[in-house]
Amino acid sequence: MIELVALDADDTLWHNEPLFISVRDQFCALLERYQPEGIPNDWLNGVEMRNLRHFGYGVKGFVLSMIETAIEMTGGRLKARDVSTIIGWGRDMLASPVELLDGACDVVERLAGTFPLILLTKGDLLHQEAKLARSGLGQHFKGIEIVSEKDAPVYRRVMMRYGVQPERFVMVGNSLRSDILPVIEAGGHAVYVPYETTWSHELVPADQLSSLQYHEISHLRELPALLGRLQL
Amino acid sequence: MIELVALDADDTLWHNEPLFISVRDQFCALLERYQPEGIPNDWLNGVEMRNLRHFGYGVKGFVLSMIETAIEMTGGRLKARDVSTIIGWGRDMLASPVELLDGACDVVERLAGTFPLILLTKGDLLHQEAKLARSGLGQHFKGIEIVSEKDAPVYRRVMMRYGVQPERFVMVGNSLRSDILPVIEAGGHAVYVPYETTWSHELVPADQLSSLQYHEISHLRELPALLGRLQL
Repeated sequence: MIELVALDADDTLWHNEPLFISVRDQFCALLERYQPEGIPNDWLNGVEMRNLRHFGYGVKGFVLSMIETAIEMTGGRLKARDVSTIIGWGRDMLASPVELLDGACDVVERLAGTFPLILLTKGDLLHQEAKLARSGLGQHFKGIEIVSEKDAPVYRRVMMRYGVQPERFVMVGNSLRSDILPVIEAGGHAVYVPYETTWSHELVPADQLSSLQYHEISHLRELPALLGRLQL
Repeated sequence: MIELVALDADDTLWHNEPLFISVRDQFCALLERYQPEGIPNDWLNGVEMRNLRHFGYGVKGFVLSMIETAIEMTGGRLKARDVSTIIGWGRDMLASPVELLDGACDVVERLAGTFPLILLTKGDLLHQEAKLARSGLGQHFKGIEIVSEKDAPVYRRVMMRYGVQPERFVMVGNSLRSDILPVIEAGGHAVYVPYETTWSHELVPADQLSSLQYHEISHLRELPALLGRLQL
């Protein structure tokens, strides 16, 4: 029997990655003014990965990484007004409206009638809280867990906090790396709902997946039926 | 009877504000190279306050506010290498060792033998977790609550989460604005331990304090005895 269902937020309940992709595109366009011969696409990714342990996930760290990348790539020729532009993108991202995925509202409402639900997401505390508030879904969740990383110890702590045994816990999300692998490691059930695009950092090599037992659905609307079957 | 003791972290258990003050000094020195006639001291504060609702508390927001201030104050003349310097200060702040206040280790260890303790702090999730890990105090806390703001609803949620009635909850901290006023509003007990210096944002006008019932101690070492008396 399932006693607790945890839902990821970004790209599981609401669109997130397209916002980052759009800002990355604007960032490349800005840098092309300094370097018309083109931009190595993975430079920003490299800076982001280098900064992750300092800055963590979220928009503010992304903005700082864009600024650092731009300074490095222009050999220090970056104009102050372009730094302002980049910070402005960050402010816009943080203030941007929340666009729910198709069916998210129905599914969450329906699940909340059957299971205790929690939202379990990583990223920036203030921004994730703001997005949840804007989503209008807040009242359906028994708890909100915003964590700095999603690994097996974190999932175990969440299960303990809610007094749930791993085999009665289900995590639902779009990231194999964050929502599926560590949950299985912690002994829970995991439901993978792929999103239209995935941040490279969240990708997992196929050989790490082959022997794992998890559920996959192609649309969030299939979730209530799947959880109903797990419940039998 | 007290059933849960919540401790603030920054400037209650470990030094924090001096790090910000030192970076503010370096920031003024950097800007004086552009503007030798001196710097209006409250400009950075103004930008920080304007950005607080977007960026929240913590080092990354502080860094973004310093960069914005510097661009504004220099009329866009700020050099890219100085932007890098500012980001570097942020990275250093995030990586900086945790320096416990005198007596913090003893007091936390002693209290943990008598009361369930939680750490209740606002700020950046990843950074606060990192500081707690560096502090070596982690094993004494039953729970860690990192919140984006400390107001009465947040305190009520924490009390509910731990199943504690307000009159059995004590908050201990150095900020009248964040650790004392909202706790009293939520019906709990509050112990004020002033720190050597207070960020202007955390100050409270005297007339808001006059009628309030809270405890004040001059040193953290007085806390076990005070809580012992409350327990009678």
